Amino acid sequence: MLTYSFEDCSAESMYEHLYRCIKQDILQKKLRAGEKLPSKRAFAKNLGVSTITVESAYAQLVAEGYLYTLPKRGYYVCELEKDPPPPPRQETAFPSKPPQRDWFADFAGSSVAREMFPFSVWVKLLRDVTAGEDEATLLTDTSAGGIRQLRQAIADHLYQFRGMSIHPEQIVVGAGTEYLYSVLIQLLGRGRGYAVEDPGYLRLSKIYEKNDVRTYHIPMDASGIIPQKLEESGAEILHITPSHHFPTGTVMPVSRRYEFLSWASKGENRYIIEDDYDCEFRLAGRPIPTLQSIDVMEKVIYINTFSKSLAPAFRISYLVLPRHLVTRFYETLGFYSGTVSCLEQMTLARFLSKGYFEKHINRMRNHYRGLRDKLLQEIRRSPLANRLKISEENAGLHFLMEVDTHRSDEEIIAAAEALDLRLTFISQYYFSDENRRPHVLVMNYSGLEEGRIPEAVARLCRAVLGE
Amino acid sequence: MLTYSFEDCSAESMYEHLYRCIKQDILQKKLRAGEKLPSKRAFAKNLGVSTITVESAYAQLVAEGYLYTLPKRGYYVCELEKDPPPPPRQETAFPSKPPQRDWFADFAGSSVAREMFPFSVWVKLLRDVTAGEDEATLLTDTSAGGIRQLRQAIADHLYQFRGMSIHPEQIVVGAGTEYLYSVLIQLLGRGRGYAVEDPGYLRLSKIYEKNDVRTYHIPMDASGIIPQKLEESGAEILHITPSHHFPTGTVMPVSRRYEFLSWASKGENRYIIEDDYDCEFRLAGRPIPTLQSIDVMEKVIYINTFSKSLAPAFRISYLVLPRHLVTRFYETLGFYSGTVSCLEQMTLARFLSKGYFEKHINRMRNHYRGLRDKLLQEIRRSPLANRLKISEENAGLHFLMEVDTHRSDEEIIAAAEALDLRLTFISQYYFSDENRRPHVLVMNYSGLEEGRIPEAVARLCRAVLGE
Repeated sequence: MLTYSFEDCSAESMYEHLYRCIKQDILQKKLRAGEKLPSKRAFAKNLGVSTITVESAYAQLVAEGYLYTLPKRGYYVCELEKDPPPPPRQETAFPSKPPQRDWFADFAGSSVAREMFPFSVWVKLLRDVTAGEDEATLLTDTSAGGIRQLRQAIADHLYQFRGMSIHPEQIVVGAGTEYLYSVLIQLLGRGRGYAVEDPGYLRLSKIYEKNDVRTYHIPMDASGIIPQKLEESGAEILHITPSHHFPTGTVMPVSRRYEFLSWASKGENRYIIEDDYDCEFRLAGRPIPTLQSIDVMEKVIYINTFSKSLAPAFRISYLVLPRHLVTRFYETLGFYSGTVSCLEQMTLARFLSKGYFEKHINRMRNHYRGLRDKLLQEIRRSPLANRLKISEENAGLHFLMEVDTHRSDEEIIAAAEALDLRLTFISQYYFSDENRRPHVLVMNYSGLEEGRIPEAVARLCRAVLGE
Repeated sequence: MLTYSFEDCSAESMYEHLYRCIKQDILQKKLRAGEKLPSKRAFAKNLGVSTITVESAYAQLVAEGYLYTLPKRGYYVCELEKDPPPPPRQETAFPSKPPQRDWFADFAGSSVAREMFPFSVWVKLLRDVTAGEDEATLLTDTSAGGIRQLRQAIADHLYQFRGMSIHPEQIVVGAGTEYLYSVLIQLLGRGRGYAVEDPGYLRLSKIYEKNDVRTYHIPMDASGIIPQKLEESGAEILHITPSHHFPTGTVMPVSRRYEFLSWASKGENRYIIEDDYDCEFRLAGRPIPTLQSIDVMEKVIYINTFSKSLAPAFRISYLVLPRHLVTRFYETLGFYSGTVSCLEQMTLARFLSKGYFEKHINRMRNHYRGLRDKLLQEIRRSPLANRLKISEENAGLHFLMEVDTHRSDEEIIAAAEALDLRLTFISQYYFSDENRRPHVLVMNYSGLEEGRIPEAVARLCRAVLGE
């Protein structure tokens, strides 16, 4: 009779050991298809274990399909495979990712002032939430649009700070704008043409491409996308950043806004996606009113994120849908579960409604204003001072700096890199080659260390002027 | 000269008030396109305000495109629109959602035992994370695959509890399986055919449909999808639940597993998605080994979720990619930001590595086992006892119960509803009509209240037998 030693089964239970031994013999064809196994009682007696041990091992092997039973006759070995197994695939090495470089100064990144996030407030609110909110809701609310409390808090915030009068039902919360773009594609149709700005946020067209959406890169004039080019493209969805175009920093004037609203009104399936990604960081004057707030035709979908205003690692963004699209959203996509954990939504709701968000934004804005002023001051004192034109310095977390130089953008970038400085030019954000403007630096200052600014500017001069 | 009263501007600053007044006059055409505004100094004197107030208001109006400046000549009103504005769209009412019904007993839902989640442990770990981890990482790590610590913890967990030997780099963390399906579609190709189980998880085919993916519903025999039907369909991606098929509860025997691995090896673009959605809740014996662990050809993509094992409102799921797909993932989709907040990933990593997850799962398993036993006991004592066949009661959080009755499934559901009981039959999970099996109840017990079980069973008898 079949026999196994139980000497080396210290870590696992007896039945697991027996299960593993039999399974191995089946896989190695020592036990052959159709072969009958000993009866439970006889086998147990022979092995010196209890009948239950054998029974459990047999049951597990039956569950996994190594054995089958015939009523009143016993246990038999299954036939596992007809074909010989294919050879194993040669193991691939993982792609070696270049280690993230720690620059002396990074004018190209969009990092945030991370030491400023009020962690202690966040943890306190989170604890309050777990103590004060209904546990059933906290653990089971997966509403497609987001939890009620957060949508209410966002609607209140938009009313107070963006002058937008919307119903909380119009809000759809999601795990980042990239995710929400894919929601919009499902809502508006993958077959439609999507128009984006050129120059623009290249990642956006990459996302559309990965979602198999036809994208049109429309050239811009000083006010934004050129309406005639948009009309000619045949696109139906217009994706724009009217409050603060990236990377040029342009604010779209109200006349151009009305032109696009009028364009949208001329086709049933035409919509405008208003990407308001960094509206919180206008450093002078009032925030620019949104396109959404002057849209009476329900043609504008507003999108914004907390990843910029809180910190990148918080993945919370939201849409504001026109009312008729709310209906469509729940009819067609309402079955989806939300993508942001309820605990985090609830904590953010309190962070907003108790005024912490406003306070946080104000601190950040002051901090960034300080960085910007210091940087501009150093630049204006530098040898570059007479060879540059600075623009769009009041909006967002970067400004444009056109430099008068004979070096090409690529040369300057390479020279800067050798000085441990990361730079980016507006020419890098064009999709098509025709209108590419050279010599305009996009100066992101949000991640700078204040103490390093003088030295960073000195190095910048060397890179641009080439000494 | 133009004049405005500053009497009623208590809440807003003087410049905001002035800005608003001028803007309104432009929108109402009281100030016409091309009209010159008073000089800053003269206007300020006339209004009795400071020049800075006028300057700020003018600057804001220039930024928004209501005014333009001509160097050394002054401020002029922009032309806003050529066409008359379209009439406002009639306001849509929001869809009235049916209020969620609170059933006396819900055998159709997949709710969880919510009172069992260890909130205090979670909050403590989260506080530890904010105190102990590097803040820069916590605020800025948005790696496409998830943070290192969580991937390591998941790999360790899979090794210990699923016998899977994988590298943490193979893991991609995402905000829910629904989101990860869309990642897989982008990774494997939207143009391929996707085969799913019939009967099966209908939401899955809905998700594929919304992602514009061609889906094939393949009929099943007692071991799972029928290989020949799969071959005939022409599908390249096979999406299955081998550990525990939903809703039949079938465990796919090892022979069928080898057949599918062999099928996958025959086409370069063939892959198997192994959905292991509730493997933690096998109530007897060892967990069923995964298909992934016997795949030597890098053809199996494993997917699992913490939404079932922690609670639905935690939106954390993950993929285990074969090694060569890891390379493809980072090459084509590595630019995406992760979708789960870093704070939550870090907390879950500690929850796993400190053994709290295992403890939690064990408690849940005991709890569910108790519910199942109580329910089976009541059913076996009831008038239904001689008219039913129960199966698959050891796996997952439901079992099948075939009842001998002349009533149709629809009649029984309606009768149950009148008794405040929610029921679901396996016939509701078929996509095609041909093989639809009647009279098999899918008994989800995870959300039951223990005290209500006797009464729930009594009502169930009435609904099935029709007294």
